[in-house]
Amino acid sequence: MNRQGESHMLRNIHNFFRLLILALFIAAPFMTHAQSLPADPLPSWNDGATKQAILAFVGSATTEGGANYVPVEQRIAVFDNDGTLWAEQPIYFQIAFALDRIKVLAVQHPEWKNQQPYKAILEGDGKAAAANGPEGLLQVLATAHTGMTTEQFNTVVKDWIATAKHPGGRLYREMVYQPQLELIRYLRAKGFKVFIVSGGGVEFMRGFAETLYGIPPEQVIGSSAATAYHVGPDGVPFLMKTDKVEVLNDGPGKVENINRFIGRRPVLAFGNSDGDKEMLEWTDAAKGAHLAVLLHHTDAVREWAYDRASPVGRLDTALDEAAAKHWLVVDMKSDWKTVFPAKQ
Amino acid sequence: MNRQGESHMLRNIHNFFRLLILALFIAAPFMTHAQSLPADPLPSWNDGATKQAILAFVGSATTEGGANYVPVEQRIAVFDNDGTLWAEQPIYFQIAFALDRIKVLAVQHPEWKNQQPYKAILEGDGKAAAANGPEGLLQVLATAHTGMTTEQFNTVVKDWIATAKHPGGRLYREMVYQPQLELIRYLRAKGFKVFIVSGGGVEFMRGFAETLYGIPPEQVIGSSAATAYHVGPDGVPFLMKTDKVEVLNDGPGKVENINRFIGRRPVLAFGNSDGDKEMLEWTDAAKGAHLAVLLHHTDAVREWAYDRASPVGRLDTALDEAAAKHWLVVDMKSDWKTVFPAKQ
Repeated sequence: MNRQGESHMLRNIHNFFRLLILALFIAAPFMTHAQSLPADPLPSWNDGATKQAILAFVGSATTEGGANYVPVEQRIAVFDNDGTLWAEQPIYFQIAFALDRIKVLAVQHPEWKNQQPYKAILEGDGKAAAANGPEGLLQVLATAHTGMTTEQFNTVVKDWIATAKHPGGRLYREMVYQPQLELIRYLRAKGFKVFIVSGGGVEFMRGFAETLYGIPPEQVIGSSAATAYHVGPDGVPFLMKTDKVEVLNDGPGKVENINRFIGRRPVLAFGNSDGDKEMLEWTDAAKGAHLAVLLHHTDAVREWAYDRASPVGRLDTALDEAAAKHWLVVDMKSDWKTVFPAKQ
Repeated sequence: MNRQGESHMLRNIHNFFRLLILALFIAAPFMTHAQSLPADPLPSWNDGATKQAILAFVGSATTEGGANYVPVEQRIAVFDNDGTLWAEQPIYFQIAFALDRIKVLAVQHPEWKNQQPYKAILEGDGKAAAANGPEGLLQVLATAHTGMTTEQFNTVVKDWIATAKHPGGRLYREMVYQPQLELIRYLRAKGFKVFIVSGGGVEFMRGFAETLYGIPPEQVIGSSAATAYHVGPDGVPFLMKTDKVEVLNDGPGKVENINRFIGRRPVLAFGNSDGDKEMLEWTDAAKGAHLAVLLHHTDAVREWAYDRASPVGRLDTALDEAAAKHWLVVDMKSDWKTVFPAKQ
């Protein structure tokens, strides 16, 4: 090649790259999902049958022309929250939130010093607090969750999640499961719409679901009490939170609420307790491609090991059904390389 | 320029276009929305202040860096259905559906020939049917909407919407408003998530919302009765529709349900009756950019003219409030070039 030919080639190469950069520049805003996915989309999952089953399912569900292809608008994935997306021991984190809230509100309630179950909570006496039975707990939950507007409550939850610490020393927001964050990101990149379907309070979860999981409020389904519409003397409307429970999102209620809120049957359901059994049955009964998954807490070292006997997140009949129906069971100890994200 | 220079330039131009085509080819799957929008996104809206107000609002809400910019995840638009997205005269179309359903079910109920209000409905005697009062109507609605699974009901609605005709001769599905189809498409192209928030039954609307408006089931909020989860003797679970009304999505209930289902305040709300008043108040009370819109039925020739005195879609107090608060009022007669789409 002569000098001129060489310079010509170099110019063409230069042009090629300039235009390729232009092409990528044009395409970039539309490619964020596709771009953000690493070569191994699930690096915190150990290689093995479980990870392979998930990758194979998502791969076949998104392969156009294949027998298991699921059109993008039908790619609904539902995840339980407590014990599925973040930890739930030794007590559901929303109860920890309520107990913390009582301590904040106590400043305005000097009478609580002599009034159960508040007295026991303020003195940190768990046994005495529990002695008031479920009614006592419900009263505490109502006190922590009502008597304010929906916007005030949202601020309270956001403030709590920013700083509140688990007895183990981690921030609650650092007790989300790293492998599940990767799975959610992977599913979203593959066109799935990911919903939380949890027994937890919907407004509590919305206070952190977007920041922690990237799940927008309109894709969070939970239990809820009624709100009441008011217009203030200044003409500004607000919604007051009441203690009248209207939606109890657990067990068969999860299926009824999936129908009410989503109106489509999920193709992927991920739970960890008997309260998720019907949601998994419902997903498993789909005619087309689907995947029902249970997380089994088997890791007493890095997290907790519990199932049939646990008062929190009991996994008993659903575990039997998973075996009988060949649902995918994730063994935390052997299937997860990492449990929690690195501390911030 | 010499021969060689010319051929070189031509080659460069050739390369440029080849790469531009490559760039567009890469970008194309991610650009469908941006590509599909015509020069005038609202061709069925007459040029004038109303159309300009809508275009100006959407323009400013989607202009990054501007004072009225709304981040994409907050672009929630809510539309009432009856009288806002499709017609509602002389009776709500869901009631027409229920009456048609009674005629189908009558084959299995010979006793209805002598039993009101069924007898009157089967004989087409509206006055006699109405004589049974609201209780009679509720009974008819319950009969038409219950006693089957959610999947069976979905099939029934889809069959009905495919063929059922309005007394005026059009198919009901051809009585959607062409200008609103354009507005929904425009909003979606601009990154808005469009929800229906209607007093109509949620499962009824989901039978056609995706086909008629392109609104997926998970973005339809309506009234609903409870469903009950069952597992059949074959082990297959199903949801039975019951007549226990659980969500009544009208008036202040629309705001409460926007909070419960979406968990974000809309930036655009579009209604047509007093039942939409609180939804518009709620949207209008947002601190950031927002638009509250009422459709005023003023066109007795192409559609219907009605407001304060109409038993269906009454628009009275909301019309006063719109004037006082400067909500945008769409005058169907003067603002819409076309009302219904071309017949198929």
